[in-house]
Amino acid sequence: MAQNLTHKILAAHLVDGSSLGTPGSEIALRIDQTLTQDATGTMAYLQFEALGLDRVQTELSVSYVDHNTLQMGFRNPDDHQFLRTVAKRYGIVYSPPGTGICHQLHLENFAKPGKTLIGSDSHTPTAGGLGMIAMGAGGLSVALAMAGESYRIAMPKVVQVQLTGRLQGWATAKDIILHLLGMLTVKGGVGRIFEYTGPGVETLTVPERATITNMGAELGATTSLFPADRQAEAFLMSMGRAEDYVEWVADEGATYDETIEIDLSTLEPLAAQPHMPDRVVPVRELAGLKVSQSAIGSCTNSSYADLKSVALMLAGKQLSETTDLLVSPGSKQVMKMLARENLMEPLLDAGARILEASCGPCIGMGGSPISKGVSVRTFNRNFEGRSGTQDAQVYLTSPLVAAQVALDGQFSDPAGWGAPPQFPELPGAAPSIRHLFVFPPEDGSDVEVIRGPNIVPLENFQNLPGTIETRIQLKTGDDITTDHILPAGAQITALRSNIPAISEYIFSRVDADFVNRIKNADDGPCRGVILGGDNYGQGSSREHAALGPRHLGVCAVITKSLARIHRANLVNFGILPLILKNPADYDRLEQGSQLTIPAASIQPGGSVTIDAHGVGPVEVINDLTATELAIIQAGGLLNYVRAKREHTA
Amino acid sequence: MAQNLTHKILAAHLVDGSSLGTPGSEIALRIDQTLTQDATGTMAYLQFEALGLDRVQTELSVSYVDHNTLQMGFRNPDDHQFLRTVAKRYGIVYSPPGTGICHQLHLENFAKPGKTLIGSDSHTPTAGGLGMIAMGAGGLSVALAMAGESYRIAMPKVVQVQLTGRLQGWATAKDIILHLLGMLTVKGGVGRIFEYTGPGVETLTVPERATITNMGAELGATTSLFPADRQAEAFLMSMGRAEDYVEWVADEGATYDETIEIDLSTLEPLAAQPHMPDRVVPVRELAGLKVSQSAIGSCTNSSYADLKSVALMLAGKQLSETTDLLVSPGSKQVMKMLARENLMEPLLDAGARILEASCGPCIGMGGSPISKGVSVRTFNRNFEGRSGTQDAQVYLTSPLVAAQVALDGQFSDPAGWGAPPQFPELPGAAPSIRHLFVFPPEDGSDVEVIRGPNIVPLENFQNLPGTIETRIQLKTGDDITTDHILPAGAQITALRSNIPAISEYIFSRVDADFVNRIKNADDGPCRGVILGGDNYGQGSSREHAALGPRHLGVCAVITKSLARIHRANLVNFGILPLILKNPADYDRLEQGSQLTIPAASIQPGGSVTIDAHGVGPVEVINDLTATELAIIQAGGLLNYVRAKREHTA
Repeated sequence: MAQNLTHKILAAHLVDGSSLGTPGSEIALRIDQTLTQDATGTMAYLQFEALGLDRVQTELSVSYVDHNTLQMGFRNPDDHQFLRTVAKRYGIVYSPPGTGICHQLHLENFAKPGKTLIGSDSHTPTAGGLGMIAMGAGGLSVALAMAGESYRIAMPKVVQVQLTGRLQGWATAKDIILHLLGMLTVKGGVGRIFEYTGPGVETLTVPERATITNMGAELGATTSLFPADRQAEAFLMSMGRAEDYVEWVADEGATYDETIEIDLSTLEPLAAQPHMPDRVVPVRELAGLKVSQSAIGSCTNSSYADLKSVALMLAGKQLSETTDLLVSPGSKQVMKMLARENLMEPLLDAGARILEASCGPCIGMGGSPISKGVSVRTFNRNFEGRSGTQDAQVYLTSPLVAAQVALDGQFSDPAGWGAPPQFPELPGAAPSIRHLFVFPPEDGSDVEVIRGPNIVPLENFQNLPGTIETRIQLKTGDDITTDHILPAGAQITALRSNIPAISEYIFSRVDADFVNRIKNADDGPCRGVILGGDNYGQGSSREHAALGPRHLGVCAVITKSLARIHRANLVNFGILPLILKNPADYDRLEQGSQLTIPAASIQPGGSVTIDAHGVGPVEVINDLTATELAIIQAGGLLNYVRAKREHTA
Repeated sequence: MAQNLTHKILAAHLVDGSSLGTPGSEIALRIDQTLTQDATGTMAYLQFEALGLDRVQTELSVSYVDHNTLQMGFRNPDDHQFLRTVAKRYGIVYSPPGTGICHQLHLENFAKPGKTLIGSDSHTPTAGGLGMIAMGAGGLSVALAMAGESYRIAMPKVVQVQLTGRLQGWATAKDIILHLLGMLTVKGGVGRIFEYTGPGVETLTVPERATITNMGAELGATTSLFPADRQAEAFLMSMGRAEDYVEWVADEGATYDETIEIDLSTLEPLAAQPHMPDRVVPVRELAGLKVSQSAIGSCTNSSYADLKSVALMLAGKQLSETTDLLVSPGSKQVMKMLARENLMEPLLDAGARILEASCGPCIGMGGSPISKGVSVRTFNRNFEGRSGTQDAQVYLTSPLVAAQVALDGQFSDPAGWGAPPQFPELPGAAPSIRHLFVFPPEDGSDVEVIRGPNIVPLENFQNLPGTIETRIQLKTGDDITTDHILPAGAQITALRSNIPAISEYIFSRVDADFVNRIKNADDGPCRGVILGGDNYGQGSSREHAALGPRHLGVCAVITKSLARIHRANLVNFGILPLILKNPADYDRLEQGSQLTIPAASIQPGGSVTIDAHGVGPVEVINDLTATELAIIQAGGLLNYVRAKREHTA
């Protein structure tokens, strides 16, 4: 039967008797490549280390440093040093700070058609522009993939995006994905892979395709994918990687779960308005809006072609006096290509500020706009406050639009801009920067992993005891978020590689005495239980909201109901998620109540009775699978995988 | 009589019947040029605005943005916007963020032989490399100079630094000033101007001279000065400013207060060890010391020649895997010159990180070293913690040494380095970046000055009342520093343009209730007095330690003794500095004591009796001059100058 490209690549990576089945069913995939960035990487490598392996099991694993490169204090550079040495120790390629943005670098240097990649960054799908299945994942998933474990996901629907025609005038690849976002919204891609097909595909270069697959993440999609065709071959040749080219295309007559058609020739320059990437309008409708800042770069639009277009537009001109233009190249390769063609000088002469090749302003690492300022950015997200200025108004556009508004000091109608620049061709042979990566030795067993004072190895959690004797150390209300459990903010986030230190902030804004109280409890390995209300653990997916309580000795959370992702994190770190069978029991229990929980009697999906001393019996249920229960009993997923591997070894 | 160059320039700028007199006597100077940087500039311009003038009275005033260019949040960019608009309003040239470092830019574009310059940055003497008297000053002094007021200093001793011979091997201009620092220490230049003379002078280009005059600040010198000779002419021609050249040299046979001789041919590469610029040793003595970071740039060593030397040294080589190299060019002109000569690529290819043209790591704005890391920097200061990493070990060297250690990963003996690079000549005509400055209109009266929420105009302080009826709101111990009065740190420093907001932190670490207490006092314009012990107000020179208390209503400080600079700041902002005639009275007075101070009866240097209710009479003295007393009675220096100008208008 004729297969679409998504099914072809997935089928080639299925393990454990898994089948593609129907959308929603679980599949297990062999992962060829992993990537991390520094903000998520330190924890992923600590987790990998905790698995006790001598070397990564993937074909390729790369550790990029691109998020926190400003180095305001010792924590960032210490993280970099840890990442460099842990990479060398375990067979991982290391990309030093300033080399570039992970997704741009991965596309230029390592992405391969037909392969699978997971990365601890939500924009990992960028590499889908080169015909691979590339997905964002949590740090623990990346750690497990590096250990050779398969990656399990619910089989997504495959959406065919049929492109016809060719981009006209000032419309660019960015406008294709903005158009899709306007049409489908930021929830429109959930549980879906977007596979691009049709005659319009061959008109798009790989960097243009990567802009689209990158920002497919904003649709909520599992990933996005272009075929590996002649454009992919041309790109790989330009990168000096012709040998990595393998044709990967959908079969003739392949079928899809859903289909969307876009005639590229009908698109015009678009902009996503504050504060959501799907609030898309034509740029012409914004004419007259004053712009105080323009920012070009990020993993979405920092390629050679992106920046060359901008340099050509700015040549011989000068920025509006009231508009600041920040340019963050995607990689040193891009910088070298610009320098070779004397394209740095027109940028400098126009007044652009050229920042280091890194994520920079996209993640609020510098480049914040003025108060209430309108900032036009070529990035992928314009969430409120993400720029670092809470009341800034951020618009997302293509580099051409961002350059034009920087010249004009305001939005204007592209109809008045004259002829658009020719979108630059890739050079036949781009200058390589492969020598800037640190490739690991064959045997890294005698490499010392250097940890600054802020990097602490993960502890080994104990197995769940058969009987839990402990107290309720905190009783919360309904709708407790992971921000309540562990607040965000620069001071606390900087401690993400230091579980003992970050645990000092657990529930700090709910009950300042909680940490002190649970630390002083003397109930052995299990020092306390949290009693929650409805929807406990909603909000961000941060693993630390489970890791921190576990470090402090929380062994169970008893609630009226639990948020999905936090429930998964509790399981991963060995905390029992129990549900009150009778929600009214919530009122009978108090902070300080002594409990006896017959943990050994818990069955998947079953119920047990807790003895609440002085209160009486309290029945709790659970919705755990047998595997999840086994993970908790083992003291968490790392222990579980470790034991399983020892067993099979 | 044969005059030295210092006396010549000073004599040409004396005002008010002032004479050069003898060292230590006060002289008043006409100031031709001013400069500010963003960290000190916002307050300087708020003070200038408070004087009520329509336009600056100097020949040239320039507002540079180079310190806080990272923009982590709205405060930095709001400051930039304020600086841009206030410059346009009052006739000041504005240099946007990313254009470069103030001292490098000033040298390239505005410095003129024979002129006077004060700047609200301690490294303003850099421009002395081009034969001008250039001095660092407080923001209020710069504001007054912009208003046309003369600048008063104690006449310094003039030290002749007689240079003979010519630099050999790997020794550079940086090693000349490091040699002097090793010889004289960081206190050796106090009350002195260093004037360079002798046949060695003509062997040094202006950028080399500027490295020396820049770091003369570390000697504690008032300023440093080179003649404006053929080297100055060549530099100005290269900058496209031949018309700015005027020969300014010492008279034949001129005399000096002191003389030092240095034979340049005897110098070798030197390094200042942690944590002081005068802890100087030969680089060879450090051979073998591992280096984790190298940083090239800052106002000391970021010229075209500095960076070209580095690029030539790195060409075809690669950095040590364990050493990070940060390069911050001094200006966009330097970047353009490097780009034109294809010198960006060897830097990138070696693995160097090229940061924006700004102060950057020198002031801890990014680029912090790893914990306990050895960082080799071409900067001018290596104070403990200044790098942002408290336990880092910072060494100061020339760019050549910094490049070599980055290649080797450690210090080594220059004897093994082979032939040194030829120190690059300036191009006959360097590319200009003058178009990147924003020059003010002839009439800025209708320009709107834009203030973000963190920028608050200075309030008008009231005259000192004839009788002060108030309480002692705080009684402190001895040795209170300005850090006790107003703590430093990023959170508080960010409020420096917002006196009401920063005042919330006055004495916050001494007595958390102080601000609340004095705000709730209902004693009219004078809401309290501080009772201090010995050496009150020692430490940093921050004006805010006087401005904040004044804002809160402190009208007098009564102490056993006062630190010199803080005393001057108290006078400038209209707070009476009174000394207990009998130190034992300190013990009789308590927080809360009600006082009646007969302020109108105070005479310069005289004594008055305070009525301390329930305690009895307390005699206090003062060491104020008549002018200082008049300033305090007027409510501070800004009021005093404003009134004087209205009187003479």
